[in-house]
Amino acid sequence: MYTLDFIAQYVNGTVVGDASIEVSSVGSIASAKPGEITFLSNAKYQSYLPLTKASVVILAKEHIEQNPTNSIVVKKPALAFAKVSLLFEDSERIPAGIHPTAIVASSASFGDEVRIGPYVTIGKRVTIGDRVEIGAGTNIASDCSIGRDSRLFPSVTLYENTRLGSRCIVHSGSIIGADGFGLEHDDRGVLHRIAQLGGVVIGDDVLIGAGCTIDCGAIDDTVLEDGVKLDDQVHIGHNCRVGAHSILCGCAGLAGSVTLGRHCIMGGGVGVAGDGPLKVTDNVTVGSMTFVSRDILDPGVYSGNVLHNTNPRWRRNAMRFNELDEMAKRLKRLEKLVGQQSGTD
Amino acid sequence: MYTLDFIAQYVNGTVVGDASIEVSSVGSIASAKPGEITFLSNAKYQSYLPLTKASVVILAKEHIEQNPTNSIVVKKPALAFAKVSLLFEDSERIPAGIHPTAIVASSASFGDEVRIGPYVTIGKRVTIGDRVEIGAGTNIASDCSIGRDSRLFPSVTLYENTRLGSRCIVHSGSIIGADGFGLEHDDRGVLHRIAQLGGVVIGDDVLIGAGCTIDCGAIDDTVLEDGVKLDDQVHIGHNCRVGAHSILCGCAGLAGSVTLGRHCIMGGGVGVAGDGPLKVTDNVTVGSMTFVSRDILDPGVYSGNVLHNTNPRWRRNAMRFNELDEMAKRLKRLEKLVGQQSGTD
Amino acid sequence: MYTLDFIAQYVNGTVVGDASIEVSSVGSIASAKPGEITFLSNAKYQSYLPLTKASVVILAKEHIEQNPTNSIVVKKPALAFAKVSLLFEDSERIPAGIHPTAIVASSASFGDEVRIGPYVTIGKRVTIGDRVEIGAGTNIASDCSIGRDSRLFPSVTLYENTRLGSRCIVHSGSIIGADGFGLEHDDRGVLHRIAQLGGVVIGDDVLIGAGCTIDCGAIDDTVLEDGVKLDDQVHIGHNCRVGAHSILCGCAGLAGSVTLGRHCIMGGGVGVAGDGPLKVTDNVTVGSMTFVSRDILDPGVYSGNVLHNTNPRWRRNAMRFNELDEMAKRLKRLEKLVGQQSGTD
Repeated sequence: MYTLDFIAQYVNGTVVGDASIEVSSVGSIASAKPGEITFLSNAKYQSYLPLTKASVVILAKEHIEQNPTNSIVVKKPALAFAKVSLLFEDSERIPAGIHPTAIVASSASFGDEVRIGPYVTIGKRVTIGDRVEIGAGTNIASDCSIGRDSRLFPSVTLYENTRLGSRCIVHSGSIIGADGFGLEHDDRGVLHRIAQLGGVVIGDDVLIGAGCTIDCGAIDDTVLEDGVKLDDQVHIGHNCRVGAHSILCGCAGLAGSVTLGRHCIMGGGVGVAGDGPLKVTDNVTVGSMTFVSRDILDPGVYSGNVLHNTNPRWRRNAMRFNELDEMAKRLKRLEKLVGQQSGTD
Repeated sequence: MYTLDFIAQYVNGTVVGDASIEVSSVGSIASAKPGEITFLSNAKYQSYLPLTKASVVILAKEHIEQNPTNSIVVKKPALAFAKVSLLFEDSERIPAGIHPTAIVASSASFGDEVRIGPYVTIGKRVTIGDRVEIGAGTNIASDCSIGRDSRLFPSVTLYENTRLGSRCIVHSGSIIGADGFGLEHDDRGVLHRIAQLGGVVIGDDVLIGAGCTIDCGAIDDTVLEDGVKLDDQVHIGHNCRVGAHSILCGCAGLAGSVTLGRHCIMGGGVGVAGDGPLKVTDNVTVGSMTFVSRDILDPGVYSGNVLHNTNPRWRRNAMRFNELDEMAKRLKRLEKLVGQQSGTD
Repeated sequence: MYTLDFIAQYVNGTVVGDASIEVSSVGSIASAKPGEITFLSNAKYQSYLPLTKASVVILAKEHIEQNPTNSIVVKKPALAFAKVSLLFEDSERIPAGIHPTAIVASSASFGDEVRIGPYVTIGKRVTIGDRVEIGAGTNIASDCSIGRDSRLFPSVTLYENTRLGSRCIVHSGSIIGADGFGLEHDDRGVLHRIAQLGGVVIGDDVLIGAGCTIDCGAIDDTVLEDGVKLDDQVHIGHNCRVGAHSILCGCAGLAGSVTLGRHCIMGGGVGVAGDGPLKVTDNVTVGSMTFVSRDILDPGVYSGNVLHNTNPRWRRNAMRFNELDEMAKRLKRLEKLVGQQSGTD
C-alpha cells in the first residue's frame, strides 16, 4: 500500500486529486480496478481513460481533463509507471543466509546479507557481493564474481571466469561462459576444437532472460557492457562485445566476434553473422528476424525480410525471387530496346 | 504384451485375422519385426505393405487386400496408431512418494500417489494434484499449482503464480513464468525494467517441449489454453494467449501480446512480432521460418520466406531484392512507354 | 609451461629460433604478450606479424622472414594452434570419485577414475566409461551409456536410452532424448500424442554446445555420427541423422526426419524442414539463417535470405516481393509486345 502522495514524490510528479488515497496494485487502463494505479502513454488507449476504474492514472498534462479519477502528472507516463511498477514487485526472496545444502568452496567469499538457495554449488575463489540472491540448483564455477544486489534465479550456470556486475538479473536456464564455438578441420575434414581460454565480463544493471547462452571468449573476453538487456533464448557468441544499454529481443543471436554499439535494439529472432568480425554502430535498431551479414556503420532502423502471404501466392513469388537477377537483366534489355525505338536513348 | 483383440477394441477397430495374436512393441511399416504392430496411413508407404514383417497392421479398409498379415481396420490409421503407441510407452516412473532430498514448504499440498524426485524444491502454498510426477532438480516457486496426472521432467523451472492444468507434460529445461521483457528508456537512453506482475495460466492436456520459455504477464496473465502443444525451444512472450489445440513447432517464438487462435499451426522457427498487440485468427497454419508482422484475420495457410539457392545465384538475387521497388517503377514506365507506342494506353 | 621444442614436436613442426624458450599461455597475434604463443593463418592479420610481442608464432614457411621472434613452421598454422591451445586448457576438473550427494542406481556401472559431481542422479543400468566427468545437477535416466573420456557440464539432462560415445563434450543446459514432436489430430482437431519409443545414439568425439535439444526417435533412433559439432541452442528433431564431422552453428534447427550428410556446415539460425523426410547430401554448406525446405543433393554452398536495408527501403522492396510473380508476367507481356513491334519475335 502506497499513498498517491508517496508515489508522486517517488516519480517526481504532480498530484491532481486526493493525495492521501492509497493504491495496492497496478492495472492496465482498460481493466484496472479501484485501489489500482495505471497509466496512459499511448494515444491508442486514450479512449479508455474516461471509463477507467483505476484509483490513480499517471498521465501527461494534456490528458488530465479526461481523467475521471486522481492523476499523477509527469512528462513520461510510461517511464514513471515502470518505476512505480517496481514498488509492487512482490517476488518471493530466498531466506537470508546460505542454505545448508549449498556446497561452497572454502575459498569463496561472501558479502553481507546474501541469500543462497538449496542445492547451489559455488566454486573456488568465487566472490559474492552484498545482498546477492542465488536460486536453487544454480552452479557457479571457480573464479567467478557476482556484484552486489544481483539476483540469479534457479538453475543458472556460470562457467569459470564469469564476472557479473552489480544489480544484474539472470533468469533460469541461462548459461554464461560455456565454450565458444572454435574449430579447425584437418586434411581429412575431421574437426579439432580450439580451446576457449577467455572469460565473460558483464557490467552493472544487466538483465539476462531465461534460457540464454553467452559464450566465453577464445583468448580475450566476451563483454556485455552496463545496462544491456537480453530477452529469453538469446545467444551471444564468443568474443562479442555488446555496448551499453543495448537490447536483444527473444531468440536473437550474435555469432562470434560481433561488436554491437550502445543503445542498439535487435528485434526478436535477429541474427548477426558474417564471414569475419562484424560491427554494428551505436543507435542501430534492427527489425525482427532480420539477418545482418555486413557491418552497419550508420545509426538508424534496418530490416531484411519477406512479408507473409497466402501460401500459393508466397510460393509463386518465392520462386520468382530466384529469377530476380535474370528479370533485372531482361528489364534492362527492354529499356534499351524501347529507348532505341522511341529514340530516347 | 497386448492381444490384437484388446488393441482393436481400444481403438474401436475391426480385426481381420487372428484376434488372439499378441504384440509386444511398435514398428514402422518398413522395418517392423514379427511381434510388432505398425500402420499404413500415407500412400507413399503403400509399397511396403505387401512386404511388411509386422504381426499386425492398422489400416483403412481399402488396403486390406494387400496386407500379408493381420489387420485392424479403422477410418484413421495414424490416429489409431497414435493411441496404440501410448500403450507401449515404457518411460520409467519416479518411485511413489516424495524423495527425502526434496525440499517442500510446509504449506504446500499434495494429492494422492504423487511422485516427487530428488533435489526438487517446492515453494509455499503450491498445490500438486493426484498422480503428478516431478523429475529431479525441478524447482517450483510459491503459489504454483499443478493439475492431476501432469508430469514434469527433470530440471524444469516454474516461477511464482504458474498454474498448470491436468495431464500436462513439461520437458526438461523449460522455464515457465520468468519475467516478461518490459522496458522503458529514460532521456539518457538508460533502460528501466517494468515489473512483471502477472502469472501464467496453462490449461489441460498441454505439452511443453524441452528448453521452452513462457514468460509471465506484465499485469494480466499469459495464457495457454487446453490442448496446446509446444515443440522444443519455443518462446512465448508476456501476455500472449495461445488458443486451444494450437501447435508451435521447434524454435518458434511469439513476441509479447500475441493472440493466437485455436487449431493454429506455427511451423518451425516462425516468429510472430509486431509493433503492438498482434492477432492470428483460428485455423491458421504458418510455414516454417516465416515472419508474421501483421494480423492474420482469415483462416488458411501462410508463408513468407526465400527458397535456398546456390550461393552465387542467391547473392545476385538477394542484391536485386534491394532494387525491387525501383525495378517495379521502371517496369511501369516501360509499360507506359510501350503502351503509348503501340497505341494501347 | 611448455618449451618451444616440446610444442614443435607436438604439432610436428620445425623450430626456427630458441627451442628452449618456454611459453605459459596463448594470445592473439595483435595482443599477445611475452611468454605467449600465437599464430598467423589469415593474410588479413599479416600486418601484425612484424609487431607481435609474442614469444612464439606458429606460421607457414612463407611468413618466417617477417617474424621478429621465434617460429614454429607448419603447413596449417591454424590447425597446429588449435592443438596447442588444448595444452593450455585449464578448466577445473571435478574431484575424482562419486560425490556423496550423487544419487546412483545400484545397477549403474562405472569405469575407472570417474568424476561425478554433487546432486547428480544416475538411473538404472547406466554405464559410465573410464574418466568420464559429470557436472553438478546433471540427470541421467535409466539405460543410458557414456563412453570413456566424455565430459558433461552441470545441468545436462539425458533421457532414457541415450547412448553417448567416447570423448564427447556436452555443455550445460543441453537436453538429449526428450520426446520427439509427434502428434495426430482427431475429427474435432484435438491433438493426440504419438509415443516416442526410440532413443538417441551419439558417436565419438561429438561436441554439444549449451542449451541444445536433441529429441529421441519415434520408433528408430535419432543419430549423430562421429565428430559432429553443435554450437549452442541447436535443435535436432526426432529421427534425424547427422553425418560424421558435420557442424551446426548456433540456433540452427533440424525438423524431424532430416538426414544431413557428412562434412556439412549449417550456419547460424539455419532451419531445415520439409513436408516429409528431407535429405542434405555430404559436403553441403548452408549460409546463416537460410531456410532449407527441399532436398539438397549436390555438394556446394547454398543460401536463401534477404539482405538488410534501411527500414523504408526494405519495406518498399518487401511489399514488391509480394507482387513479384505479377511483375514477371508483366515483363513477359512487355517483351512480347516489344518483340512484335521490333519484329524480333
